[in-house]
Amino acid sequence: MTDPYLHADAEARAQARGLIDTARYGALAVLQPGGLTPSVSRIALATDAQGMPVSLISSLSAHTAALETTPACALLIGEPGGKGDPLTHPRLTLHCIAQLITRGTSEHDTLRARYLALRPKAGLYADFGDFRFVRFIVTDGLLNAGFGRAVRLSAKDLAA
Amino acid sequence: MTDPYLHADAEARAQARGLIDTARYGALAVLQPGGLTPSVSRIALATDAQGMPVSLISSLSAHTAALETTPACALLIGEPGGKGDPLTHPRLTLHCIAQLITRGTSEHDTLRARYLALRPKAGLYADFGDFRFVRFIVTDGLLNAGFGRAVRLSAKDLAA
Repeated sequence: MTDPYLHADAEARAQARGLIDTARYGALAVLQPGGLTPSVSRIALATDAQGMPVSLISSLSAHTAALETTPACALLIGEPGGKGDPLTHPRLTLHCIAQLITRGTSEHDTLRARYLALRPKAGLYADFGDFRFVRFIVTDGLLNAGFGRAVRLSAKDLAA
Repeated sequence: MTDPYLHADAEARAQARGLIDTARYGALAVLQPGGLTPSVSRIALATDAQGMPVSLISSLSAHTAALETTPACALLIGEPGGKGDPLTHPRLTLHCIAQLITRGTSEHDTLRARYLALRPKAGLYADFGDFRFVRFIVTDGLLNAGFGRAVRLSAKDLAA
């Protein structure tokens, strides 16, 4: 079968970066613990100083338990608004390794300061004991910019 | 750890059914072939006559190859609009087994008639040779109806 994905060009790289930089939330796909079945949930998103996706997640959530067992995961970002055909709206799949950040470390403090500056409302729960930051180390991505325009992107293509 | 999920009640069942019945699209989580890493992509959605999620997907897409290898998958539906806090918007995770429908069967024809009645624009590509219907057999679900309101639902709770 011919690979239907295009190679990344400057336009695709810029579009992907734009989606990462503006994403307020996304769909997180994980492997469920103890099995080979995926799950998917919505999480809030911002970026770290290197432009990589970051979230603030609760240990009470099933996705956090899943990431503790299997850090390989995927994010879908680029959400349609209420109007128009959702399948023509550009979106980006990012394959990632999740890195859970221990509370009280300097890395936590650095991420917390930036995250709360970008997402002030997260101050309501950022300091609850069950919440931790998670950084997503992106390994590769797939940009779908509408029917027939699907592009493979490397980690380098996706760097800020 | 205490299970933070609530038991389903009539309100949660009705809310979950409403999300399934009105979903135009969702995030599909799959296992990538040849590995233990998840991926996630956006797909169009409608329902079959039994009220279960149905999509029309291309064999050229990575998610179709993934479902052919591992039919266990998950859907996230219930998309926020452009306004408000996306994490207070109700959404539903469905754990599913994907059933790919062979073109030219009576089952294909039945699904095609209903799908095109519900999603007329899909007529543009429904008859392309690489497109097939997929039905999602729901095994269980998680409804997240906002902060602190997470509900487990069985297949029976989610039936139409």
